[in-house]
Amino acid sequence: MPERIPVAVLAATGSVGQRFVQLLDGHPWFEVVALTGSDRSVGQTYRETCHWFLSEPMPEWAARLIVLPTEPEGLQTELVFSALPADVARTVEPEFAKAGMTVCSNASAYRREVDVPILLPEINPQHAGLVPIQRRKRGWKGCIVTNPNCTSTGLTVVMKVLDQNFGLKKAFVVSLQAVSGAGYPGVASLDILDNVIPYIGGEEDKVEWEPRKMIGRLDGDTIRMSDCVISAHTNRVAVSDGHIVCLSVELDKKPEQAEVFRALSGYQAPRESVNLPSAPRPVIVMREESDRPQPRPDRMTGKGMTTVVGRLRPDPLFDYKMVILSHNTIRGAAGGSIYNAELLANMGLAGTNGL
Amino acid sequence: MPERIPVAVLAATGSVGQRFVQLLDGHPWFEVVALTGSDRSVGQTYRETCHWFLSEPMPEWAARLIVLPTEPEGLQTELVFSALPADVARTVEPEFAKAGMTVCSNASAYRREVDVPILLPEINPQHAGLVPIQRRKRGWKGCIVTNPNCTSTGLTVVMKVLDQNFGLKKAFVVSLQAVSGAGYPGVASLDILDNVIPYIGGEEDKVEWEPRKMIGRLDGDTIRMSDCVISAHTNRVAVSDGHIVCLSVELDKKPEQAEVFRALSGYQAPRESVNLPSAPRPVIVMREESDRPQPRPDRMTGKGMTTVVGRLRPDPLFDYKMVILSHNTIRGAAGGSIYNAELLANMGLAGTNGL
Amino acid sequence: MPERIPVAVLAATGSVGQRFVQLLDGHPWFEVVALTGSDRSVGQTYRETCHWFLSEPMPEWAARLIVLPTEPEGLQTELVFSALPADVARTVEPEFAKAGMTVCSNASAYRREVDVPILLPEINPQHAGLVPIQRRKRGWKGCIVTNPNCTSTGLTVVMKVLDQNFGLKKAFVVSLQAVSGAGYPGVASLDILDNVIPYIGGEEDKVEWEPRKMIGRLDGDTIRMSDCVISAHTNRVAVSDGHIVCLSVELDKKPEQAEVFRALSGYQAPRESVNLPSAPRPVIVMREESDRPQPRPDRMTGKGMTTVVGRLRPDPLFDYKMVILSHNTIRGAAGGSIYNAELLANMGLAGTNGL
Amino acid sequence: MPERIPVAVLAATGSVGQRFVQLLDGHPWFEVVALTGSDRSVGQTYRETCHWFLSEPMPEWAARLIVLPTEPEGLQTELVFSALPADVARTVEPEFAKAGMTVCSNASAYRREVDVPILLPEINPQHAGLVPIQRRKRGWKGCIVTNPNCTSTGLTVVMKVLDQNFGLKKAFVVSLQAVSGAGYPGVASLDILDNVIPYIGGEEDKVEWEPRKMIGRLDGDTIRMSDCVISAHTNRVAVSDGHIVCLSVELDKKPEQAEVFRALSGYQAPRESVNLPSAPRPVIVMREESDRPQPRPDRMTGKGMTTVVGRLRPDPLFDYKMVILSHNTIRGAAGGSIYNAELLANMGLAGTNGL
Repeated sequence: MPERIPVAVLAATGSVGQRFVQLLDGHPWFEVVALTGSDRSVGQTYRETCHWFLSEPMPEWAARLIVLPTEPEGLQTELVFSALPADVARTVEPEFAKAGMTVCSNASAYRREVDVPILLPEINPQHAGLVPIQRRKRGWKGCIVTNPNCTSTGLTVVMKVLDQNFGLKKAFVVSLQAVSGAGYPGVASLDILDNVIPYIGGEEDKVEWEPRKMIGRLDGDTIRMSDCVISAHTNRVAVSDGHIVCLSVELDKKPEQAEVFRALSGYQAPRESVNLPSAPRPVIVMREESDRPQPRPDRMTGKGMTTVVGRLRPDPLFDYKMVILSHNTIRGAAGGSIYNAELLANMGLAGTNGL
Repeated sequence: MPERIPVAVLAATGSVGQRFVQLLDGHPWFEVVALTGSDRSVGQTYRETCHWFLSEPMPEWAARLIVLPTEPEGLQTELVFSALPADVARTVEPEFAKAGMTVCSNASAYRREVDVPILLPEINPQHAGLVPIQRRKRGWKGCIVTNPNCTSTGLTVVMKVLDQNFGLKKAFVVSLQAVSGAGYPGVASLDILDNVIPYIGGEEDKVEWEPRKMIGRLDGDTIRMSDCVISAHTNRVAVSDGHIVCLSVELDKKPEQAEVFRALSGYQAPRESVNLPSAPRPVIVMREESDRPQPRPDRMTGKGMTTVVGRLRPDPLFDYKMVILSHNTIRGAAGGSIYNAELLANMGLAGTNGL
Repeated sequence: MPERIPVAVLAATGSVGQRFVQLLDGHPWFEVVALTGSDRSVGQTYRETCHWFLSEPMPEWAARLIVLPTEPEGLQTELVFSALPADVARTVEPEFAKAGMTVCSNASAYRREVDVPILLPEINPQHAGLVPIQRRKRGWKGCIVTNPNCTSTGLTVVMKVLDQNFGLKKAFVVSLQAVSGAGYPGVASLDILDNVIPYIGGEEDKVEWEPRKMIGRLDGDTIRMSDCVISAHTNRVAVSDGHIVCLSVELDKKPEQAEVFRALSGYQAPRESVNLPSAPRPVIVMREESDRPQPRPDRMTGKGMTTVVGRLRPDPLFDYKMVILSHNTIRGAAGGSIYNAELLANMGLAGTNGL
Repeated sequence: MPERIPVAVLAATGSVGQRFVQLLDGHPWFEVVALTGSDRSVGQTYRETCHWFLSEPMPEWAARLIVLPTEPEGLQTELVFSALPADVARTVEPEFAKAGMTVCSNASAYRREVDVPILLPEINPQHAGLVPIQRRKRGWKGCIVTNPNCTSTGLTVVMKVLDQNFGLKKAFVVSLQAVSGAGYPGVASLDILDNVIPYIGGEEDKVEWEPRKMIGRLDGDTIRMSDCVISAHTNRVAVSDGHIVCLSVELDKKPEQAEVFRALSGYQAPRESVNLPSAPRPVIVMREESDRPQPRPDRMTGKGMTTVVGRLRPDPLFDYKMVILSHNTIRGAAGGSIYNAELLANMGLAGTNGL
């Protein structure tokens, strides 16, 4: 194995930051050499400052790192993973891109920019083609690539497969989302015990827009948005990890249910992404029981990277109904960013070690 | 006050049975004189046999009653409330109706019979007009009337108001349902802690059918079903009481959002039902906060009989989206049956005391 | 009824502050004329600034009050209820006492002062005798009286009855505490879903000390602490309201179990406190089922003011074991402060209206 | 590697049965060749009949096995793991022992028999010396060995280390136990959401007795029970897996806190058990944070076999207080039985392959 690419995690102490640290432990291509945090944490060891709550123990190498300020100066990395909140990401991520680093961002700040891709390597790796365009246009040596909102993630994997096989026209989406999606401390226990919060700020806008960009086609310098129409209700429920989405779809062609099942269960990731270290294996698991998928027993399917689909059945208003489960802090956040970084590294767009 | 009507609760030890007992404590018109149970319970006092788990204490009068077998023989009552499971209700409820009793049933067994009404007194009291038809057709001195499935309840109140004002064509429905809806012991804790179950047996069929009957018009001897089309996904979440429904609707007329708000917030129950003891006051509460209604803080609105609606907003696919909350064991079960009984008593269709 | 005493709630927007507002709604003796809050809230209406999460709706009179800064200037009240955090209470409460007001405080700041009583009117109303001593010593026209830590509350009621009947020597205490005890936002949902936190900062010190003062005897100008020894483990569990305490006690006399049962179940509050509006009715409820008390079904016993005890049984190490339940934001916080204020008002130590 | 020992799992479809199947997947010494179940399941495949709810997927080899009746006839195994309920185990386990099989039982039925060991290989492997005595006395070719109640497990590991270093005289124990300890369906969700159940049938007796046998010394043909005295309160909380125990201990010697810490953190399993496949690595992890261990983040320490201890601190009544966490269905049930089987196999007391 050649040397691993040195990487940093920005905002490493939060909910998504911890997942980055945990998932990068022992990564075959990337080596975490820096963790950044807010003023409160800078100068302390990661062990001292991080309220670690994952069930996997904090890696020793991480525990000993001194938390650095979130700025490109002095960072010996070519690739950074960003778990920054959107408002901070807006001003800080470009500094890293200008400094020549590839920013794989979990933040929403740049997802709507026309030259910034929202990547799901198993369905739209060709959108990485925006990177040279972005560099040229902005004069950056580095770049920013994003992964979608956690709820859009599994949903878009399914929508893309349906669209490419049958033409997707309409999607009705209702989510039941885990509290880890709100970060830490995030949702107060008094707000979620014995309760549901039928509202997540800004989430419905994202879910109604992001999938249309990701399903869209890169055409010259720009992405043509899909013209499917999406309606979303988003809800918070008392679950630690794993987002459930209830989906009803109207399709252009009118396939048999068995065809839909086969299209989903048989979907293969494209050549560019199928063999990457974090690739979901398989991309989609179809469950045939009446009551699956469920968050607790099913969220770790494919190490948390697989999209799990069940309850495929006819819909009285549209064509088909189904239930989708995706692990929101793995496939829907840190794991997704890492998968993106692997795609870029493989294309020579991150790091210079020529893996 | 004249004498109260003597009533019985069938299957009084379960989740809904306990609610009947609690809500009938101190009822101005009805006096519980008998509680029935399964073989396991018969002959014991209610206190001995009932695993009571409501937060209101078991009424003393109930605690002392000896549980009787579920059969009409020997019952000195004109009205019975049924919390029987559907399969048992199928064979047992007609025996009480034949014996001259009015059966206010929470079971689904007879809801689809053409001569059995599904009543929500605040929206379709005129459907009680099926009772004489039912008696004539079946040769019963008593009758069976039902209340809808708990998830259909609040949903249908809203659908009816929208239909009568704007014409309802399509409804997309996703529920997040409390565990008390599954009875006791019902949902195992291992199945719902840190989890969602995206399936409730038979529920989606009921939610896609029952509202259409209740919104329908009594025309001669029969109810003309509404031809609106409903698509439902039903989910179980870790909530004790209170069902949330996410609803998107397509309307015939294209009202402004403010008109929809006014139609819902200003809805008045018909003259026949507005002053009954259990009438919801008001029928509908509209919440304007971004994140309400929620089960824990809002389920007891109007003593658990009011339908709470919030998050009214435009829908990209249909016309409007909203969130509905209804207390599933009060408005959606025992409280609903009692409200039905009050309507019938007021119409002279239950009891002979001429209230 | 004479005019009600005008009162204020300090820090009215938090978890305990909301309980004060809810419990004072319709109070026969007290009328809330002012609500105070932090800088963030001052100048807004209570409705605008308060994230209300109780299941009882926010009273209309409260919703319309403009939140004031937490300072005595301009307050037309003789009595204030303090839901301030301990560090703020330390400096702010004396200002109100100096300004002539009676401060009924839920904060821990002054509980350990020798001239400040920790009151539980049903067991130690005579400790209110410290108030004139406090006034004289500090030169205040007003005073500060406190209620105990929420976990100490029900525990001390039981300990006092045992001590006065049988002599209490040792108490082993393990709590399972509700999240509302940590205020709002308080415990993060990620920290408590599918979890227990076996630590609550500062709590064990309070539980090992406060009951000894409350059980102690007022002797001249000072309270002689009880010399019973207490060991406490305190835990946070996924419960919204209601603290459970597992208690084992060693007694001086060696009573039969039935005597202990009778002492607890038959306990009567002293003449000074038994008829106050918020007095628990009864003080203690003894449950005889094998598995009670439990938080959800039992916490509202006696409107949340009663101490519920169950599972009384022999202890292999000490004499008896039992389980105690007390509502932590009612009896253990706001309701307790109000009960204290009623005691003081009745003794002429709060307000001047001569109730 | 020589051939693996063929084993069976009795009552394989339940909560503990599933753990046996999951933990035996890929076991280096044991190969599951038979799964047994109740009449309801016999004749179906394991996939068809088992309501699998673990997060690890059901192994394919298990899914295809046909469930057999729970009887020794026809079983080609030398070793069986029993997840039977205690009443069934009472009559059924001896049949397997008579038929020459080693029964590693998770049931409580035989734990109190003088010739049946309760084994925790990391602390009392020498108790396996009862097996030849049991065989001789009962005339069995096989034998029954048990693992302790799940709550006694981690507790006894700690008690043993304290006893052997400092002499253990008294132990005060309060548990906060996960719902998986009650099997499936076990605890109803309505009984545990927003609630605590301060009672677990029969549990306190076990916790007050079993550790004394396990800490005891095998002396000739019998075990001399430890004469330490234990008082236990046991509680059920809303946690899926992982039992918390609050422990206070009185010791004979009066060690410094640092000595207690070192004795626990430095404890090594005996030579007989330290290198077995399922041995906890390490036996005990000491946590130094103020608020650990906690069930969700810490239960999988050492693959769920390690006992995690934290919050070691002085106790006002006894000598030291601490908090213990142990995974109840791994170390405290199936994993413990498997570890026992490994010990016996290594001693030549299970199987004939002479590993």
